Amino acid sequence: MSTAEETDGDSTPWGEVTPEAARRLLVAAVEAFAERGYHATTTRDIAGRAGMSPAALYIHYKTKEELLHRISRIGHDRALLLLETAAGRDGTAAERLADAVRSFVSWHAERHTTARVVQYELEALGDEHRVEIVALRRRTDAVVRRIIGDGVRAGEFDVPDVPGTTLAVLSLCIDVARWFNAQGSRTPEEVGTLYADLVLRMVGARK
Amino acid sequence: MSTAEETDGDSTPWGEVTPEAARRLLVAAVEAFAERGYHATTTRDIAGRAGMSPAALYIHYKTKEELLHRISRIGHDRALLLLETAAGRDGTAAERLADAVRSFVSWHAERHTTARVVQYELEALGDEHRVEIVALRRRTDAVVRRIIGDGVRAGEFDVPDVPGTTLAVLSLCIDVARWFNAQGSRTPEEVGTLYADLVLRMVGARK
Repeated sequence: MSTAEETDGDSTPWGEVTPEAARRLLVAAVEAFAERGYHATTTRDIAGRAGMSPAALYIHYKTKEELLHRISRIGHDRALLLLETAAGRDGTAAERLADAVRSFVSWHAERHTTARVVQYELEALGDEHRVEIVALRRRTDAVVRRIIGDGVRAGEFDVPDVPGTTLAVLSLCIDVARWFNAQGSRTPEEVGTLYADLVLRMVGARK
Repeated sequence: MSTAEETDGDSTPWGEVTPEAARRLLVAAVEAFAERGYHATTTRDIAGRAGMSPAALYIHYKTKEELLHRISRIGHDRALLLLETAAGRDGTAAERLADAVRSFVSWHAERHTTARVVQYELEALGDEHRVEIVALRRRTDAVVRRIIGDGVRAGEFDVPDVPGTTLAVLSLCIDVARWFNAQGSRTPEEVGTLYADLVLRMVGARK
């Protein structure tokens, strides 16, 4: 597992984080958390991976939890933005849902190391930060529920249990981060296309 | 998260593990790995949780990795048995697939703490043990692929990509362990029933 290859379509991973030292520390933290888990990682480990001293780390991040929070916040913000962009487009509910699933899934495949850390270390966040992240996750859920609800009201979809189906659709997409293998036979885009079709089946979209 | 409530329909969790001291240590290890991660947990932590001395632990398990392997092996054996039992029943492919999904999902919901450890700490297994567990996972995959293939051949299902759909179905079911909340509004059986319906939609089962 390496975030070095996770470019998210940008030339530099975590390009939104500045200055450069803060960005390198974040990349190092994702790698360390993914390999050994949050609790087994020290700020010294992270500084070492980034080729920096522990004192240099503290200039940018006061605690290990602050690093995890930044990773989690940026990851959740990006995932929510992808879904909101798809939801806000013109088109039928089926087109918007397929678009949302394709972009959400490709992102989870491309950024699978980051996404794993974000998903598996949620309990390690401090109380205040966890509340903030849970609120972002509720918004993510609401975007997908709204598209599915639109489709039901328009007679495009047949969904007996909208909240349950929303949960299942997001779960299916998020779990791509667990099993995706960059050396495997499917590209992130191919998984996105397959999943868009499967999700349209789950909501009973009219062909 | 607590395995104390994970009874798997038996009166005692991990009832297949004897003697009692070995069983208690396994329950303690699942709890510790789930809370802090494998790498941040020591055999001393595990012994302490079980109310035993480190020396008493070594009578039953030589290393921390041996504990993880036992947990992973029992979990994978159980999951495979559930699927093989459903696959081997009389009935249409749709009936067998729905049965397989219901029992696999209920198990992942009821035993969510164990299932998380099994899924998230796969990389921490030693090489020989990882090869063994990967082989069990291939068999799990093959069981589901066979049911789906039977349905396609019988004209019951419409599945353009059988390996991809098999992967997605298993992924959907496994991820229940990540989000399932024993205090939430859905029981393991309710999630199993919802998911059986969603999976029949994914394979385009004729109504």
